[in-house]
Amino acid sequence: MITNPFDDDKLHEECGIFGIYGHPEAAAHTVLGLHALQHRGQEAAGIVSYNGTQFFSQRHHGLVGDSLSSEEVIRTLVGDSAIGHNRYSTTGDTLMRNVQPLFAELSGGGFAIAHNGNLTNSMTLRKSLIQKGSIFQSTSDTEVIIHLVATSSYPKLVDKLVDALGQVEGAYSLVILTQKKLIGIRDPLGIRPLVLGETEDGVPLLASESCAFDIIGARYIRDVEPGEIVIFNEDGVKSLKPFPKANQRSCIFENVYFSRPDSLTANTSVYEIRKRIGEELARESGVEADLVIPVPDSGTPAAIGYGRESGLPFELGIIRNHYVGRTFIEPSDNIRHFGVRLKHNANQPQIKGKRVVLVDDSIVRGTTSVKIVEMVRRAGAKEVHMRIASPPTTHSCFYGVDTPEREKLMASQMTVEEMAKHINADSLAFVSLDGLYRAVGLAGRNNDQPQYCDACFSGDYPIKLTDRDGGEDGQLSLLAEQG
Amino acid sequence: MITNPFDDDKLHEECGIFGIYGHPEAAAHTVLGLHALQHRGQEAAGIVSYNGTQFFSQRHHGLVGDSLSSEEVIRTLVGDSAIGHNRYSTTGDTLMRNVQPLFAELSGGGFAIAHNGNLTNSMTLRKSLIQKGSIFQSTSDTEVIIHLVATSSYPKLVDKLVDALGQVEGAYSLVILTQKKLIGIRDPLGIRPLVLGETEDGVPLLASESCAFDIIGARYIRDVEPGEIVIFNEDGVKSLKPFPKANQRSCIFENVYFSRPDSLTANTSVYEIRKRIGEELARESGVEADLVIPVPDSGTPAAIGYGRESGLPFELGIIRNHYVGRTFIEPSDNIRHFGVRLKHNANQPQIKGKRVVLVDDSIVRGTTSVKIVEMVRRAGAKEVHMRIASPPTTHSCFYGVDTPEREKLMASQMTVEEMAKHINADSLAFVSLDGLYRAVGLAGRNNDQPQYCDACFSGDYPIKLTDRDGGEDGQLSLLAEQG
Amino acid sequence: MITNPFDDDKLHEECGIFGIYGHPEAAAHTVLGLHALQHRGQEAAGIVSYNGTQFFSQRHHGLVGDSLSSEEVIRTLVGDSAIGHNRYSTTGDTLMRNVQPLFAELSGGGFAIAHNGNLTNSMTLRKSLIQKGSIFQSTSDTEVIIHLVATSSYPKLVDKLVDALGQVEGAYSLVILTQKKLIGIRDPLGIRPLVLGETEDGVPLLASESCAFDIIGARYIRDVEPGEIVIFNEDGVKSLKPFPKANQRSCIFENVYFSRPDSLTANTSVYEIRKRIGEELARESGVEADLVIPVPDSGTPAAIGYGRESGLPFELGIIRNHYVGRTFIEPSDNIRHFGVRLKHNANQPQIKGKRVVLVDDSIVRGTTSVKIVEMVRRAGAKEVHMRIASPPTTHSCFYGVDTPEREKLMASQMTVEEMAKHINADSLAFVSLDGLYRAVGLAGRNNDQPQYCDACFSGDYPIKLTDRDGGEDGQLSLLAEQG
Amino acid sequence: MITNPFDDDKLHEECGIFGIYGHPEAAAHTVLGLHALQHRGQEAAGIVSYNGTQFFSQRHHGLVGDSLSSEEVIRTLVGDSAIGHNRYSTTGDTLMRNVQPLFAELSGGGFAIAHNGNLTNSMTLRKSLIQKGSIFQSTSDTEVIIHLVATSSYPKLVDKLVDALGQVEGAYSLVILTQKKLIGIRDPLGIRPLVLGETEDGVPLLASESCAFDIIGARYIRDVEPGEIVIFNEDGVKSLKPFPKANQRSCIFENVYFSRPDSLTANTSVYEIRKRIGEELARESGVEADLVIPVPDSGTPAAIGYGRESGLPFELGIIRNHYVGRTFIEPSDNIRHFGVRLKHNANQPQIKGKRVVLVDDSIVRGTTSVKIVEMVRRAGAKEVHMRIASPPTTHSCFYGVDTPEREKLMASQMTVEEMAKHINADSLAFVSLDGLYRAVGLAGRNNDQPQYCDACFSGDYPIKLTDRDGGEDGQLSLLAEQG
Repeated sequence: MITNPFDDDKLHEECGIFGIYGHPEAAAHTVLGLHALQHRGQEAAGIVSYNGTQFFSQRHHGLVGDSLSSEEVIRTLVGDSAIGHNRYSTTGDTLMRNVQPLFAELSGGGFAIAHNGNLTNSMTLRKSLIQKGSIFQSTSDTEVIIHLVATSSYPKLVDKLVDALGQVEGAYSLVILTQKKLIGIRDPLGIRPLVLGETEDGVPLLASESCAFDIIGARYIRDVEPGEIVIFNEDGVKSLKPFPKANQRSCIFENVYFSRPDSLTANTSVYEIRKRIGEELARESGVEADLVIPVPDSGTPAAIGYGRESGLPFELGIIRNHYVGRTFIEPSDNIRHFGVRLKHNANQPQIKGKRVVLVDDSIVRGTTSVKIVEMVRRAGAKEVHMRIASPPTTHSCFYGVDTPEREKLMASQMTVEEMAKHINADSLAFVSLDGLYRAVGLAGRNNDQPQYCDACFSGDYPIKLTDRDGGEDGQLSLLAEQG
Repeated sequence: MITNPFDDDKLHEECGIFGIYGHPEAAAHTVLGLHALQHRGQEAAGIVSYNGTQFFSQRHHGLVGDSLSSEEVIRTLVGDSAIGHNRYSTTGDTLMRNVQPLFAELSGGGFAIAHNGNLTNSMTLRKSLIQKGSIFQSTSDTEVIIHLVATSSYPKLVDKLVDALGQVEGAYSLVILTQKKLIGIRDPLGIRPLVLGETEDGVPLLASESCAFDIIGARYIRDVEPGEIVIFNEDGVKSLKPFPKANQRSCIFENVYFSRPDSLTANTSVYEIRKRIGEELARESGVEADLVIPVPDSGTPAAIGYGRESGLPFELGIIRNHYVGRTFIEPSDNIRHFGVRLKHNANQPQIKGKRVVLVDDSIVRGTTSVKIVEMVRRAGAKEVHMRIASPPTTHSCFYGVDTPEREKLMASQMTVEEMAKHINADSLAFVSLDGLYRAVGLAGRNNDQPQYCDACFSGDYPIKLTDRDGGEDGQLSLLAEQG
Repeated sequence: MITNPFDDDKLHEECGIFGIYGHPEAAAHTVLGLHALQHRGQEAAGIVSYNGTQFFSQRHHGLVGDSLSSEEVIRTLVGDSAIGHNRYSTTGDTLMRNVQPLFAELSGGGFAIAHNGNLTNSMTLRKSLIQKGSIFQSTSDTEVIIHLVATSSYPKLVDKLVDALGQVEGAYSLVILTQKKLIGIRDPLGIRPLVLGETEDGVPLLASESCAFDIIGARYIRDVEPGEIVIFNEDGVKSLKPFPKANQRSCIFENVYFSRPDSLTANTSVYEIRKRIGEELARESGVEADLVIPVPDSGTPAAIGYGRESGLPFELGIIRNHYVGRTFIEPSDNIRHFGVRLKHNANQPQIKGKRVVLVDDSIVRGTTSVKIVEMVRRAGAKEVHMRIASPPTTHSCFYGVDTPEREKLMASQMTVEEMAKHINADSLAFVSLDGLYRAVGLAGRNNDQPQYCDACFSGDYPIKLTDRDGGEDGQLSLLAEQG
Repeated sequence: MITNPFDDDKLHEECGIFGIYGHPEAAAHTVLGLHALQHRGQEAAGIVSYNGTQFFSQRHHGLVGDSLSSEEVIRTLVGDSAIGHNRYSTTGDTLMRNVQPLFAELSGGGFAIAHNGNLTNSMTLRKSLIQKGSIFQSTSDTEVIIHLVATSSYPKLVDKLVDALGQVEGAYSLVILTQKKLIGIRDPLGIRPLVLGETEDGVPLLASESCAFDIIGARYIRDVEPGEIVIFNEDGVKSLKPFPKANQRSCIFENVYFSRPDSLTANTSVYEIRKRIGEELARESGVEADLVIPVPDSGTPAAIGYGRESGLPFELGIIRNHYVGRTFIEPSDNIRHFGVRLKHNANQPQIKGKRVVLVDDSIVRGTTSVKIVEMVRRAGAKEVHMRIASPPTTHSCFYGVDTPEREKLMASQMTVEEMAKHINADSLAFVSLDGLYRAVGLAGRNNDQPQYCDACFSGDYPIKLTDRDGGEDGQLSLLAEQG
């Protein structure tokens, strides 16, 4: 049997995006920004640059630091403006033609676009566009936006864009590069993040997270607002809000897991939020124990918070092996739950005979939790108490996060007690939804008008799911293309 | 200095195409057909198959026998119908997205197309299509046909096709695969070849040349006629001739060099034609000599004919090295014209002290002829008489053959006497245009209504050159895409 | 300018080794053991197995999990005994023929060997062996051992081995596989580690560290003793001590940095030792501050210990980017010390306005420390106090650790005060050598008969450096081999 | 089913070698020489150069023009002396460590060797060398020579060489490069060829065939004599003949197939010899027919000779497809003998209704002949008469040619009549052994003291087969090494 240690039982963000306007080394900075955003997508990456006359494109599978960062590659990305994209792809969908930024030759000139999010009516729109003669080159929902722009009857590009986005439903943060402009757009609910920054010399920047600014010594200015279109051209910056006003519903899971702890979201430290979730957990469901241990690395800030609030010592009771690999043969005589030990090892002398609190960020399918608890028990723990820094994940996300089918989400199938039993923990507790809202700085969830998108915890979907509800499955005639 | 031995100073056909309808091993047969047509294009190859539900595609750089023929690849090309394409590409234009067959999802379903030829108004049409909202994914003129079909207002596919082809100018032999049909089309003048065949079991086939039928034990039936659309579907075969009637003008150079000698063209043996050209040459410009030597391998049949007619012994006076390579460093102290010896070596004992007639198929830039004559002289030939199995190549081709700019064609810049002097031959003669027409079986060229396209020899272009004359250069916004 | 983010200013262990005797899945277990030892060498890895009749070998560049772990590879490594090796290579020396295990056909049969350590008289021995007719296939010092064995006049293999090892000087932990035996050997001073374990079913194991046992659910028994030869064959296990008795001088740096924190060394937890070093540091050179921050990841246990002892809060003030890459272009306008931010980012909200204690494991060249301090200052730290969990590294290692020339070691060129100033820290302190000995559980260093090899801190080299002192530079006739 | 079109049912020479001494572009010339000798081995190639201080080596799988000819590679091969080697390898034996030139660091300095031939007592010698402590790095018989030299007790290199070669049995042409000398050696019977040449500037050259001189504009001087050692150093050239005098027995098959037709052997044109074999055939076994057709390309000169002598017209009745590939799937419904059509196609209009004489160079297993005859019959030939330009191949070669086991040689199992029936030819005839001797210029075979090695036709082996007769099978302990 073969075990893939990459299957780490986590939700995955589907993209990171970056843009820069008017810098002599635009491509080199975009590479660095994408490297800092690598946690948002590791399957492929691409950059499009523009030099005032021509566009240049490089799109590759693999990590930014392997495929895009060489001098040889950057030398081909001429020009002082650029946009870039990191891609996380769902299984099977690894075609190069889906790697972003996508580029099209429109009647007004070249148009490059990078997208973080997911449209919920893209198949419906696609069908109608094909009917009118559009030919799609990718299976990406992003291409729907391009065709809507290309066939819009408005004469000006920004009007075409507003026309096009007026027809799409779903979550989208976009960076767009044309012959004259860099454009950043966030959907009306602001589901996926997009932040604005500038270099020390005042060159404007766009990125999914502020950590992409830190790496190039630039500073975070503010979040792009929900429904805002920010346009940079040679005359400076312009901000439009052409869409009907809506209440913000940013993704709360960014705070739990997706964003890097050193990023700022709405001017707040993600690391600080995670420590506060740990403190909430300690208050809501503290337990008598000898030490608190993070499940590395995503559980660490919450474990520090838990330890601080509870007074329990924080120890690295699980050591992570930073080297990974593609596949490993599992020896047939091996003890159960082999896979987890490819990445984690119990630090036995710390654990033996102790009552331990394990802190993890979330439980998705639950497969890893089962293995982690068993590993800690085998190392001699007297009691194992699992504490989770998010509420139970009960619903799938359709707004740009790769989640399993609902039936595979452990929390959609079991009560917390059943889950505790299943993973063989002496106790299991999740932070409450209100506790999570408190950790991000609110008094709790406003159930009449929730301040965040928390559909994965609550099933409250703020944008309708047209394709899913209409049965559009996106089946294509060309099943497989290789080469 | 680096010498590329592939630069063999020949004209190059730009493609070979193949189609099969209703055979359980459609892809395996297409691979073999493309292998037999490999001489028409070596840069890339592709196949699209259809299994009644889905299309499957494989497109790769390199030779058919290296990239498409493995069991692993063929296993993915499911279905009982398939089309295939061999591509010869002009410099720099090596993008995978240009490798054919091209595929598009049209409103009526999937549509795959493979094209041999060249459209002369594609840039003009492309500009107008972009204006209306079409987005191009390749730089290939073939994609223009797809967009014209996709945006045609006729409801039925065949009518859309006729509508689309009514707008294009140029040379095209096409094979098209849809969910219900295999279609073969030859342009109204029949410039590029397309032949019809069938397997022993009566399965219909289309191919650029009949040698693609021999390899699978199938037989040649007839040429697809100029302006004919042949449609195979489950009801059998149908032939349409929707375009205004025109006089046939097939490419005469196919007989001189492009086609394989074992192919039949209009039911005539290409090998036989070439021997007859050699005989014409011996009659038109015989010379006293000791032996006749072909420039391998393309000059061989004409040299046999020349020897037969003149009574001179035929000898392999030049030996070809069948192994080639990418680049070689030329030693600085080397004798002149080093490159030619990477591929050819004089068979000195045959040549020394002899008066030799060298027979080659054509002279393009003349660079190789200079080297060949010098090599033969260094081997001790007393006299060198060059005889060419085609008239002087004075004009570029715009109908699907890769030719240099006119100024680089030796025969457009010099008289035959100047050329003889330049290549240092004791005498040089080309077969006359009438002699060439006689060799293909006619009484001579009908100058009022020529029976072939011989623009490369005569400058008489049978189809207008809209893009060239309109200055459409096809400059694109996206200069370079890598990855 | 190009910056290689891998250059992390650390010392590097040169190898990890593993052996297993009499298990039906010997190769699959060896792959897992090598994966757990990957931190000891990432350049290449290899395995040799034996099936009672033939030996099988796989050696590859790259990580174990990429190159050796696939079913396809393991299937070729037939047999129930195997040895494996992870290699860290010094610059330029990346030939496959140097990748271990090395194999030779000796007169008594096949002989495979994997070596962790470095011989200090290998060039001298090599010269003499060549004189007698031996032909070397690698530049590895390990091959010297093989030739000494091959040419030994003793009839039995173990006697040949003792004869051969009696001539070598230096550090060596060896695993050897022959047609009948698995052999583990540690040099008389026990400089490099080698531990003994067994699976749940009693199958014997050898490894550089005990974490290689954990991953396969096996248990640590004891360290192989200095100068001990352990032999496993079908009759069971045998232990020899044929060398003159010497005082143990194990490498103390294993405890500081090389070994994984979850490994046991002489039955003591490495993680625990590192926390105790942090406690020593807090006691020896505590400073008033607001928080303690580890330089990730190697400084973390000591920072936890420092925090515990000093009462300062432990915070992740520096966030590590786990994605790396080959090279990055440094933008010309970038702020100084760009490279460090490819791997680390200051967690600004935690640091701003604070007095911070940074804890790192060691300072080698000091280049990273300069950048880290500047990064923390730019993030707004009010004071930066650097504390190092080892004494100043003043001397190069010649016993199997890749260290820079002595002149490049910062501590060999500057006083601690000068170093503090150079790295721009408000204060800098190293743990004392006695403090380090206390942390490993002794009363302090016994200067008459030191209990560890601490040459890198003290210059006290326990084994003579024959090649270096004799000027043997190992220059070879074959400068470069490619292919 | 998969058919490998490379399996062309021919004998294969095992190597080509080249050497140059004292030329500023030694490596570039060696690349060209190896390219001209590519027909002698296509599996791998290597070059070792020497610049007065160091040796440089490049060894690669694949063709010279793909792997060794780039500027990048040649730039690494510094120096004014070089030797090179083309390798044809037997199945499975494709390890890089077997690719030549082999290099060893001997006590007197570097020693590089390239070998064409095969030793018949290498396993016996190898066993004895291992017993004395030699460690082998390859499975090549060439390495035996190196170890014999390395362990020879003579002080001077040339004496060591004579000592070593005095112990080996078999066929060997060698080029050797040391720090001071280029050495060429041919075994006492002169079985494999080795010729001496010089550039226009008088730089000395060694090569397997004279065509390697033509490509660089150099000239053939003479064959190295059997048993001769030619030594080039800064003092000029020296020739030794240290071995006991023996009668020359050069391989006669070089004239039939191995050598290029444009090479000279013993100052005679190979092309001329092959035409004369065709003439002998026409005289010995002429038949009434309409035309003579070569099996391309190796049958062509003999077919020309046959046509000349018989008066039958020579036609290209079989057209060769010069593009090859790795594997092709054979369609299940295909007609028999599919494989041959991947490479050859009958030129049907020439053949239909005709009585044809097919001329091929040899019959080995006979598998191709069966297919060729069937293909020609299917094309409509009225009669098919096969004529073979060599005697029946009844015995395996052990002197450096890759031949099947004796039982697989068709002529060892059947009479000529049975063979004719088996391949379905109307008649079959081979040239007689005396006819072959006449074609090379002798009066016939001197059966008391044959002038050539013709063991493959006669079973008369001029050198004893010690390993084979002693049952040394060369089984090694290390069965498989990958990576």
